[in-house]
Amino acid sequence: MAVNVGLIGAGVMGTDHARFLTTSVGGARVAAVSDPDTGRAREVADGSGGAVIDDPVDLIGDDRVDAVVIASPDPTHKPLTLACLAAGKPVLCEKPLATSSGDCLEIIDAEASTGRRLIQIGFMRRFDPGYVAMKTALAAGDLGAALIFHCVHRNATAASYTTSENLIANTAVHEFDIARWLLDDEAERVTVVSPRASSLGGMKDPQIILLHMTAGSVVDAEIFVNAQYGYDVRAELVCEHGTVSLTPPNDIQLRHAAREGFGHPEDWRPRFAAAYRDELQAWIASVKGGPPAGASAWDGYAATAIAEAGLASLASGATASVDLQPRPALYHSP
Amino acid sequence: MAVNVGLIGAGVMGTDHARFLTTSVGGARVAAVSDPDTGRAREVADGSGGAVIDDPVDLIGDDRVDAVVIASPDPTHKPLTLACLAAGKPVLCEKPLATSSGDCLEIIDAEASTGRRLIQIGFMRRFDPGYVAMKTALAAGDLGAALIFHCVHRNATAASYTTSENLIANTAVHEFDIARWLLDDEAERVTVVSPRASSLGGMKDPQIILLHMTAGSVVDAEIFVNAQYGYDVRAELVCEHGTVSLTPPNDIQLRHAAREGFGHPEDWRPRFAAAYRDELQAWIASVKGGPPAGASAWDGYAATAIAEAGLASLASGATASVDLQPRPALYHSP
Amino acid sequence: MAVNVGLIGAGVMGTDHARFLTTSVGGARVAAVSDPDTGRAREVADGSGGAVIDDPVDLIGDDRVDAVVIASPDPTHKPLTLACLAAGKPVLCEKPLATSSGDCLEIIDAEASTGRRLIQIGFMRRFDPGYVAMKTALAAGDLGAALIFHCVHRNATAASYTTSENLIANTAVHEFDIARWLLDDEAERVTVVSPRASSLGGMKDPQIILLHMTAGSVVDAEIFVNAQYGYDVRAELVCEHGTVSLTPPNDIQLRHAAREGFGHPEDWRPRFAAAYRDELQAWIASVKGGPPAGASAWDGYAATAIAEAGLASLASGATASVDLQPRPALYHSP
Amino acid sequence: MAVNVGLIGAGVMGTDHARFLTTSVGGARVAAVSDPDTGRAREVADGSGGAVIDDPVDLIGDDRVDAVVIASPDPTHKPLTLACLAAGKPVLCEKPLATSSGDCLEIIDAEASTGRRLIQIGFMRRFDPGYVAMKTALAAGDLGAALIFHCVHRNATAASYTTSENLIANTAVHEFDIARWLLDDEAERVTVVSPRASSLGGMKDPQIILLHMTAGSVVDAEIFVNAQYGYDVRAELVCEHGTVSLTPPNDIQLRHAAREGFGHPEDWRPRFAAAYRDELQAWIASVKGGPPAGASAWDGYAATAIAEAGLASLASGATASVDLQPRPALYHSP
Repeated sequence: MAVNVGLIGAGVMGTDHARFLTTSVGGARVAAVSDPDTGRAREVADGSGGAVIDDPVDLIGDDRVDAVVIASPDPTHKPLTLACLAAGKPVLCEKPLATSSGDCLEIIDAEASTGRRLIQIGFMRRFDPGYVAMKTALAAGDLGAALIFHCVHRNATAASYTTSENLIANTAVHEFDIARWLLDDEAERVTVVSPRASSLGGMKDPQIILLHMTAGSVVDAEIFVNAQYGYDVRAELVCEHGTVSLTPPNDIQLRHAAREGFGHPEDWRPRFAAAYRDELQAWIASVKGGPPAGASAWDGYAATAIAEAGLASLASGATASVDLQPRPALYHSP
Repeated sequence: MAVNVGLIGAGVMGTDHARFLTTSVGGARVAAVSDPDTGRAREVADGSGGAVIDDPVDLIGDDRVDAVVIASPDPTHKPLTLACLAAGKPVLCEKPLATSSGDCLEIIDAEASTGRRLIQIGFMRRFDPGYVAMKTALAAGDLGAALIFHCVHRNATAASYTTSENLIANTAVHEFDIARWLLDDEAERVTVVSPRASSLGGMKDPQIILLHMTAGSVVDAEIFVNAQYGYDVRAELVCEHGTVSLTPPNDIQLRHAAREGFGHPEDWRPRFAAAYRDELQAWIASVKGGPPAGASAWDGYAATAIAEAGLASLASGATASVDLQPRPALYHSP
Repeated sequence: MAVNVGLIGAGVMGTDHARFLTTSVGGARVAAVSDPDTGRAREVADGSGGAVIDDPVDLIGDDRVDAVVIASPDPTHKPLTLACLAAGKPVLCEKPLATSSGDCLEIIDAEASTGRRLIQIGFMRRFDPGYVAMKTALAAGDLGAALIFHCVHRNATAASYTTSENLIANTAVHEFDIARWLLDDEAERVTVVSPRASSLGGMKDPQIILLHMTAGSVVDAEIFVNAQYGYDVRAELVCEHGTVSLTPPNDIQLRHAAREGFGHPEDWRPRFAAAYRDELQAWIASVKGGPPAGASAWDGYAATAIAEAGLASLASGATASVDLQPRPALYHSP
Repeated sequence: MAVNVGLIGAGVMGTDHARFLTTSVGGARVAAVSDPDTGRAREVADGSGGAVIDDPVDLIGDDRVDAVVIASPDPTHKPLTLACLAAGKPVLCEKPLATSSGDCLEIIDAEASTGRRLIQIGFMRRFDPGYVAMKTALAAGDLGAALIFHCVHRNATAASYTTSENLIANTAVHEFDIARWLLDDEAERVTVVSPRASSLGGMKDPQIILLHMTAGSVVDAEIFVNAQYGYDVRAELVCEHGTVSLTPPNDIQLRHAAREGFGHPEDWRPRFAAAYRDELQAWIASVKGGPPAGASAWDGYAATAIAEAGLASLASGATASVDLQPRPALYHSP
């Protein structure tokens, strides 16, 4: 009765997904694991009694696999997602759906031609209790219309190969998705502002990204990937009658050594652990016949399209427009 | 491979346990449900594809049941737990283990005679991320020895049949257990102080309960079951070099109508949802062969013994001593 | 020995200044008051044993007056400040110094020709304990270079005659000054972004104003004068190694009616009461022979010049540059 | 027109008072200073243009002195206060009024025989904005009757000569006064509880002191004078419908080095700077003919009487009663 999940990619994210599926999500088991590093695949598979299948396409087609989680490198997302569609199997694909909006559109076309929603994108923030509570507060109506959405996204340190472009294409893409979801709106224009760069990291870091949404609201997102002090994600939604903001997810407060406060995690995994778990739980429920959950392929396309406009703005210094294709009927309902 | 759980009691707590076991804990399924209200039992069982077994003792003995959750009324805990021991099946019993320390000792004797730990008591706070982080902070050593543990336990409103005694026997018992666990120590003496009573509720409410622990630290716990404004649990551990306290578990902050702040839940279920889930997850792991997790039968006995001393102090106005029997070897390790 | 202060303007601000000078600042007394509303002037003067002098220019010239506070309407600031310079008397002039940058330059020329600093502008935030602590934290060096300064300025409601332009010229001007002071830098360019307007107030409200500073840091200020929920000023300075932000100035926390939090004031006076007091105390100390304190006429000019660029940007929708005249030697030291 | 203040004691507190009187309080000047250390007296006097008068009794009698501040060692308070009464001069005496309740009663008798209130005791917390806001919140009525008052008073480190008794007689006395004032009630019984002592300091530290008030409410105060991490005063008033608590007086929040939080001061002076200033301002207003402000000699007596009961409880381990003499009519109004 449990959903047999095939996991592609046994790196940090894949291992986390496997652990959640095994211990913290009901009605699922990791049935097969694929990774170029067979030892790593074996380790994850052993933890859950699953098989190791070397070729990810074989895994997708295997009868022992009901549904697929893709946590392999970005360039593999497109072909593997298409293979899942071809096999008619539900897939939870880590962001991005594909590395260009054109590729995303191909996937959308392929999914639309199947006539049903098989793809969920791993924009896990949509399941974070804080963002969920923000959306609930907005929907309650007391706050009135949304006008500004302030976002802050800080990493302690970025990998050495990180570029100025990565801040937009890999990091800010989370803000793009959560803003679209929270405001239930699309972005029309993107402007990237580059303040004085930190002397650490050797790139344009931090950046401020402004989105003009169709309904007129403005999103301003600070992206700072070498913020040093820790991983920190903040957001405040400013509405006509008040605002709602995330509170930092600290369980305890220390008073010690002349200071009072709490710690920031080093990366996003503890910060969004509940979101990852709830995302998987919702995905399993949809695989079992529930309605689609989380971000769709369309959402993956839209986030990538905003990122491309952002990269254009970063290069030109001017505002860039986001030109989306018409939304297929398959994605009209949420 | 999943653990087949038999659930006794399909009330509020039992229904929550069934939901968690079905959706949020890996490797478990609700195989059978028993409740005097057969319709209620049927509803819970249907949600998880389990059977309904009218007699809880039959459920315990049924081959389809690997392990048992007891969420039925307090007076049933003793006979049902003993039945689980007789059947050699692991059991997660909601607090209290039994309604008197004498009865608890009988159960301890029975478990000790089996030679292994089969009983976990549902003191879920031991799995709350906040308390866990407090214990981790204390263990880290920077704070030095624990000296005082300030606790606050407030309910919005108490049921109409609540008595002054219930504040100690049913509510404060959570503080007794968490203090013992956090401080890794036993209580020697209990003093109940009764401030001016709230005009709401018609009983001695609030109360301040002081525990003197063996190592000399003091626990002071405010118990206030008609606090009106919401469910609120707070704690601060004062140590030689600093303190650590729980932060209120709020995901968002609202600025609206001339105020800034966050909401308190009406009862304990949202507050301790993560704790309940993690408790069940740890229990399932122990059922599958892991080490015992959570509170033992000894812990259930000790909490009940402190409550009895508290009731004596409430009645006499004087300090009462806690006289525990020797701890059997089975409970020497944590 | 006390400084005899002549007060011009007995409205809300003037009355507050008189009260502070009488009760909360040592070494000063209100010696004379001038206001077109003689009754109001009389009331304020009686509270401090001062004289009423109808003509403000007579007040400035009066032998009983050592130094002057100008709290009369904006258009009077220029002629009255010039009269103070002519009389050789120190003056604390409420912002703005004058209503155009050209007029400000005339005053700067006049002051420069006296060879000494007689003018202090009432940018009181420079004395707010929060902003002072931010500047101290930045100066301490641990945070590294300043990169971004996020500002939020919200009023509960704006007067009915408020225009979109007022948000920049009257409200944001406080952010302009405090950013210049905190960063010890000048603004080069201003961009005004207008999000969807609140349906309350009938103007472009809120606005986001971006300043590009000479050293490359960026200031983004949300100005929202019909924010409804209260008066709220926030700021976070983002530096290479960490950030420092203002905390809301709440003395107490209430837990009541299912919520926990604190109140926001209706306007700026309670929020900046300490700043106004300390500003006056510093001004009196400088009048008594101490070094110049607070914002200079140059600072008043620079803030007005930024506001003019902001108005140009609001009108054009494009970025506008701030072109300052060379800074006279008189204003080279702080 | 300014009040000429004679200051006795030019130590830390006296110097602070002189500075506040000179710079931050209107209508006052330090006219004379007395201290056994003449150099120190001279330094303080020079800062304000005052005279040095070696003998404090001479200072009290001097025609250049209108009112007296006593900031000399505790044993001098009684004779100097009596000298002020004899001279008919208002006096602000640092706590304690005298070192025994019997001595306090002598002073009360002397003041009562003058028929007017000349003595204010330096319980500055009554002027702290936080405590004032708490009292206002209680008086507003929404919270209902007060039931419990939780207090925490922590010092970073205590002087080497501090004894277990000092925690009650010198430190907790502030809690005694503020509780009486906030609750508008007297203490009937005192119980001192001594938890495990910190290994730092060599005394019974911390202590928990319980006051039973006449109206039934209970005050529990943690006193911890070697708390290491900083000076920290907290309070929460628990009422029938909600609670009100002090918020920590932090102006800024730092995010740095993996942590977010704020600093605690090393001692009470920055924490209560506003309280000291407002206390002096209110005292000067009363000297100029306004109604009595702050704590009266009766309040000084009551606090000392509670401290004596506390010392009895500390010695005996049992609850001690507070037996106040009848309150003279002079002290019936606040």
